[in-house]
Amino acid sequence: MPRYRLTLEYDGGPFCGWQRQLGDPSVQQALEEAIARFSGESVATQAAGRTDAGVHALAQVVSFDLGRDWDPFRIREALNFHLKPHPIAVLDATAVTGDFEARFSAIARHYEYRILNRRARPALDAGKVWHVPVDLDADAMHAAAQLILGKHDFTTFRAAECQARSPEKTLDVLNVSRQAEFIVVSASARSFLHHQVRSMVGSLKLVGEARWSPRDFRAALDARDRSRCGPLALPYGLYLTRVSY
Amino acid sequence: MPRYRLTLEYDGGPFCGWQRQLGDPSVQQALEEAIARFSGESVATQAAGRTDAGVHALAQVVSFDLGRDWDPFRIREALNFHLKPHPIAVLDATAVTGDFEARFSAIARHYEYRILNRRARPALDAGKVWHVPVDLDADAMHAAAQLILGKHDFTTFRAAECQARSPEKTLDVLNVSRQAEFIVVSASARSFLHHQVRSMVGSLKLVGEARWSPRDFRAALDARDRSRCGPLALPYGLYLTRVSY
Repeated sequence: MPRYRLTLEYDGGPFCGWQRQLGDPSVQQALEEAIARFSGESVATQAAGRTDAGVHALAQVVSFDLGRDWDPFRIREALNFHLKPHPIAVLDATAVTGDFEARFSAIARHYEYRILNRRARPALDAGKVWHVPVDLDADAMHAAAQLILGKHDFTTFRAAECQARSPEKTLDVLNVSRQAEFIVVSASARSFLHHQVRSMVGSLKLVGEARWSPRDFRAALDARDRSRCGPLALPYGLYLTRVSY
Repeated sequence: MPRYRLTLEYDGGPFCGWQRQLGDPSVQQALEEAIARFSGESVATQAAGRTDAGVHALAQVVSFDLGRDWDPFRIREALNFHLKPHPIAVLDATAVTGDFEARFSAIARHYEYRILNRRARPALDAGKVWHVPVDLDADAMHAAAQLILGKHDFTTFRAAECQARSPEKTLDVLNVSRQAEFIVVSASARSFLHHQVRSMVGSLKLVGEARWSPRDFRAALDARDRSRCGPLALPYGLYLTRVSY
């Protein structure tokens, strides 16, 4: 069966997340319904990153099979038509070989977390950032972030409901930088635990407020104890920006 | 009477524009109601740029008088509280002297127009850009833009309902540049005619599509004829970015 790969941009706001969930609107359901509408086929799609409710994607990668060959350009156009009015756009569609799997072939996921760090709440960026009105020290946050790079047991930064077999992950990049009124956190790894990025960002915020030192941040990791995690960062500041294969 | 100056960010989407209009929600009305709620006073506000329906602001400047002295910090906080849930944020509030008028003291207005130039419609930027799916030549657009800088009769790029006494304006900056999938048009002048920026951008799009040469664009200006203007660019790609005093 011909296999296809899609690159998706979406606003996570109106969805319960990527994954199908009975009774709630998901990105996966909206996409699979749009595929059914143009192809007449009922397919199961697989995504590189199972984004949570409210989490956005600039370039989510999805794979699925169809019973017959389609021009990838027509797939993209048909999906963008049938996906209306959902805030989901198909940026790219290509035919791939049968061994490509959006989830299991990925060698790295790249996320970005955007904090609007100013007194006034967001007007234009409402629903697209986490608003933190107190001044954050981005340099201290970045210094702390460097202390947890590499392979560790990330139990502290893992959701209770995380289904990964092991809490060990290798964190390749965790950068924090100020861009005018925004603080941007970039994170890259082969894979992340459930809520890992938002848990790390929520804890880094404590460092930015000087309530934690960078060493406290590292000590929280070493404790391997979920109760040592800072408050979870809100979902709608998080973006899946890229997937590497 | 003490006079205050505000800097506002707003999403123009839900509004009929800056200016009060009977029966329609305007930014001015939302702001004046919020001022009344914290101060008990019914005031008339004045804005630097009377943005149209759907047009956004990153830094609109507004002035108004109050009967008594207020700490500007408290004004900002009170307004941000009372403006909820409108997508309007007060970024800054200061006390100014009685000769400051947001509209008449301004020496330059700066606008930015954002075109999303890719096949797929916007998901994350819906309502914040003009989506143009055909490839635009930003260099040709920029070259054309340079041909209309300076003082001219801008009748071609002026709305029929424009109330300015003269169609003569001096255009100081009109830059076009590509930024990944976006084409950004920056425009600066002491003041603009009604619909001038959107008229210029709509005509520049014809240059970007190679339906007009840069010389056709200049010829349209020289014709001083509204019927020679290209189709008006949509309002929600336009941002009032800054006002100079």
